[in-house]
Formats: sequence, structure tokens, C-alpha cells
Amino acid sequence: MLSLTEIYESYQDHAGSVTFPSSPENLYGSIVYFLDYPGKRIRPVLCLMGNELFDKIHPNAYVAAYAMELFHNFTLVHDDIMDHSAIRRGRPTLHVKYGQDTAILAGDMLLIHAYLQLNKITQEYRTQIINIFSEMACQVCEGQQMDIEFEDRAIESVSYAEYLKMITLKTSVLLGAAAKIGAIIGSASAKQQEDIYEFGKNIGIAFQIQDDFLDAFGNTLKMGKQAGSDILENKKTALLLKAFELANSSQKNQLKEAMNTAGESKVQAVIAVYKELKVDLWADWAIHHYTEIAFNSLDRIEIPIHKKEKLTELANSLLVRQS
Amino acid sequence: MLSLTEIYESYQDHAGSVTFPSSPENLYGSIVYFLDYPGKRIRPVLCLMGNELFDKIHPNAYVAAYAMELFHNFTLVHDDIMDHSAIRRGRPTLHVKYGQDTAILAGDMLLIHAYLQLNKITQEYRTQIINIFSEMACQVCEGQQMDIEFEDRAIESVSYAEYLKMITLKTSVLLGAAAKIGAIIGSASAKQQEDIYEFGKNIGIAFQIQDDFLDAFGNTLKMGKQAGSDILENKKTALLLKAFELANSSQKNQLKEAMNTAGESKVQAVIAVYKELKVDLWADWAIHHYTEIAFNSLDRIEIPIHKKEKLTELANSLLVRQS
Repeated sequence: MLSLTEIYESYQDHAGSVTFPSSPENLYGSIVYFLDYPGKRIRPVLCLMGNELFDKIHPNAYVAAYAMELFHNFTLVHDDIMDHSAIRRGRPTLHVKYGQDTAILAGDMLLIHAYLQLNKITQEYRTQIINIFSEMACQVCEGQQMDIEFEDRAIESVSYAEYLKMITLKTSVLLGAAAKIGAIIGSASAKQQEDIYEFGKNIGIAFQIQDDFLDAFGNTLKMGKQAGSDILENKKTALLLKAFELANSSQKNQLKEAMNTAGESKVQAVIAVYKELKVDLWADWAIHHYTEIAFNSLDRIEIPIHKKEKLTELANSLLVRQS
Repeated sequence: MLSLTEIYESYQDHAGSVTFPSSPENLYGSIVYFLDYPGKRIRPVLCLMGNELFDKIHPNAYVAAYAMELFHNFTLVHDDIMDHSAIRRGRPTLHVKYGQDTAILAGDMLLIHAYLQLNKITQEYRTQIINIFSEMACQVCEGQQMDIEFEDRAIESVSYAEYLKMITLKTSVLLGAAAKIGAIIGSASAKQQEDIYEFGKNIGIAFQIQDDFLDAFGNTLKMGKQAGSDILENKKTALLLKAFELANSSQKNQLKEAMNTAGESKVQAVIAVYKELKVDLWADWAIHHYTEIAFNSLDRIEIPIHKKEKLTELANSLLVRQS
């Protein structure tokens, strides 16, 4: 069995061996620019680990892993346009560097290339994989649509349940599908496929809530971004939506008043209500809750426990709790 | 064998039987809105006719035909954003009606759903079809990238040869691929597949040049749009690029001066140079030239001539020459 680092490196070797045409220069140049960034490659690594859980890593798993990464980048490129994001991973976003038109096309091409990769997989399980992938892809688009619609809705009209559905679709099903597709290539049973999918999906949900939690309560230095930036932007996070669910009318007014202000005092005012409502403790509970669902799913897979260590290691590296 | 109308109607029956989920309402609503327009459905009809050339229409061909239509609509939705088009087929474009974010996502979903359809095709030829489709899809994106880059380039820096490459990629390879994919499902030989592809592609090129020709020299009433609109917009058409290739320096100056003016006198001034350079005759020749290449390709396919009548009928309905 390979170590986590070895899996990462073997994936990078595979991804590095894939080339794109050179013309039109801006279109393919923008794709290479965007794919070439430092990162953990969580989705392809999860796909390879889902495969290695059941078998030695199969060449098809590298192909599928690369398709997952291409798909992930497709969503990032198009999401950055919709979110008007100027910076990603410390560099200009694709649409800022190459213009919106090229960014739309580059995203489209990344999606097409993901399918070109999937079409290389052995026929035996290709049909199933392309269906799972496409269903997941639709869900991710649905989640993004929900997210952009949340922006325009009044805070009290969005429930935490809707938020949970949105992040599940937008970010978590991709982690579930990546692990599941790896498992399919490893000839996992239908039950095992479902369990590994639930593992990936729930780790994703826990990670997303943690992201919201750390923005309000995390250590700025560790996070590498300003604490409270979600609060400053009135972003509809798990914390804010749960706070509105728990708040009485006076606390709701406090939150709404704070949301109309700015600066450090705004952050402090919102956090004060969060603490009063124990939203911090709730978030900590929720992170543990989804992590537990994930690990229970992993436990259900009847294979020697040492084979699961790397998935545990990966999950723990994502879920670095402050407590 | 079915008549052209029967093929069209059988396709519409198939397409009408496909449904989309209802939520998120705006996302799927926008897709249904965009797909539900009156039109000739040239690409799916071509796919079915490519199939019927070699066999009775196979259920797989309807699935592939629908994928072609979904793909075509994906390109229209994203192109309309890039081209800032407000109206298509007499109705507001998707991004005007539903906003740009939803339009990006709706386009993405149409592409994903095209693949979901292709993944239903019998395994026997599915791998080949998905590869041909994906290669075509990349070419279409490349063509669109070339087109948007042409916009920003000086008129004299774009050659007619580049324009020809651009329209071939952006619009014609889809017609070629639609017919070819139908033929593959009809168990056509590799040579026959190539011939039907060349038929579709070259009809597409002829149609595109005709489109440019009619804008300058066509009858406004018959066309349903204002004659000379390309000239008024200084659009880099086959005619304008060929004119610059044929013009001496004095004629180039005449064209450039005219391009800086507006209104009916601008149209007349540009058309005067076109006539001086016999660009109208050249365009008529070019349309005939590509039509001939198309029909020669069709002729090479050794099947009874009556089986080809519908393809001839379709091509003639597209290429309604004024002369």
C-alpha cells in the first residue's frame, strides 16, 4: 500500500503526463494556467484511495481521478465568474487574467475533457461511472444555482436546512462520488460503494461547516485569511442561519442591526450573539456529528482496519479542529 | 423510409418525451424555456438521416439526435452571453430572461445532459461516439474562441483562411458529426462515415458563407432581418475578409473609410467596393464550391440513390440561392 504522500505524488505524475493542444493559445493556455497550482488534490486523491481500499490502484483509477480534478476545476472557473472572485489560491482568477469569454469556454472545455477521460475507462464499469459522474455534476450545478439564489433572498427566508442541502449539492457530493468511483473500479460491492460515498459526502459537509466556524472563531494566523470575513460580507453561513433559527425577536434585531454596520465592531457584535445563542458549541457539535456519520460509514466497510488508515488520515488533515 | 416531415415529427415526439426535474425552478425552467422554441432541428434531423441512410432508424439514433440538440443549445446559451445577444428566435435570450449566472449553469447542464443521453447508447459503438462527440465539442469551443478573438483584431490582420477555419470549427463540424454519429449507429463503414461527415461539414460551410452573402446581397423580406446588418456592425464576414484580400490600396482605403461611417450610405459604399471586386460573384462561387464538395462526398457513398434524396432535400432547403 502507498502512503498518502506516495498517492499524491503518483497522481501528480499521472496528471503531469496529460497534455493539451497549443492552439488557440489563450484558450488552452488559460486551462494550463488554472490547472497548474499548488494544492492537496483532495478529490483525485480520494478517488485513488477509494480504489486502493479494495484493490491495488488500477490504471483506470488514475484516469477517473484526473477526470474528478478536471471537473472540480470546471466548477471553480465558472463559479469564480458568478461570484466575481478576483483571486484564487493567491493568483488572479481565470476570468480576471484571460477575460470572461475565455473563462466560460475554458470551463466548458474542462468539462468536456473530464468526459474524454471517463470515456477511457474499461467498458466493464464505464456506463455506471459516467452516470454517477453526470448525476453528481447536475447536483453540483443545482447547488451552485441555490447558492446564487440565496444571495438575493432575505436572511430570514433561508433556512439552515436549505443551506445544508445547498452545501451538500455544491461541494460534498463531489467528494462522495470521487471516492465511490474509485471503489467501483476496485470492484467494491453496491453496499460498499454506498458506504464510501457517504463517507466522502459527510466529510465534505463537516468540512464546509468547519469552514464557516473557523471564519468566525478560528485563529487568523492558522487560517491564512481574515477572521470574520464572512460576517463582514453578511454571508449566509451555517452559523448565521442557525443563529436566526435559534434567536428570539430581540436577538434577531441585534443581528440585523449588526449586519447593517461594518468593521471590527460588526464582527464582535455578531460573535457576541453567536456566543449568547451557543452557536459556536452547536457548530462544533455539527462538525463532530457529520464526521461521526462519515466514520461510521467507513467502519461498516468490512475490510481490515489498517487499509482504512489513509482515509482516516486524509479526513483528519481536513478536519483540524481548534478545540 | 420516412419523409423529411416524418423524420422531423418523430424526432419531436422523442424530444418531447424527455423531462427535466422541477427544482431548482429557475435553472430547469430556463432550460425548458430555451429548448422549447420553433425550429428546423437541423442537427438532430441530420443525425437521424445519417442513420436512415444505412438502416431503419434505430432507437439509439433518437438518443444521439437529442444529444446533438442539447449540445447545440448549450453552445447557443453560452455564445449569447459572450456575444451580448438580447434576442434569439424572436425571444429574449436565456441570460437576458434569467440572468447571466443561471445562463452559465443552464449551458453547463445542457452539456452534461448531452453526455447523459450519449451514455444510453448501446455499448457496441458508444465509446467511438463519445470520442467523436467530445472531439467535435472541443473544436466548437476552439472556433468560438477564435471568433471572439477576431473581434479585437484589426480587419487586415484576419485572413479569409482563418475565417474559414473558424466557421468550420464553430458551426460546421457539428453538422458533420451529427450525420456521422447517425451513420455509425447504422453500421456504416469507416469510409462511409467519413463521407457523410464531409457532406455535413461542407454543407455547413456553404450555409455559413451564404449567410454572409445574403446579409449583403439578399432580399430583406425573404431573410427576415435587415439587409446589411453585418456591414453596419463592421462584422468580419467572409465577404469583408475576401474583399480586403482582393483590394488594392485605394480600395482598402475606401473600405476603411466606409467602415468609419454609419447608416444606409455605409452599406451602399461597402457593397459598391464588393461589386467592384466581384466579391458577390466570388461568394456565389464559394457557396457552389462547398456545396459541390458536399454532394460529391454524398455521391461516393455506394447506396441506392433514392436513399439519398432526403439529405439532398435538406441541403437544398438550407441553401436557397437567390440566383
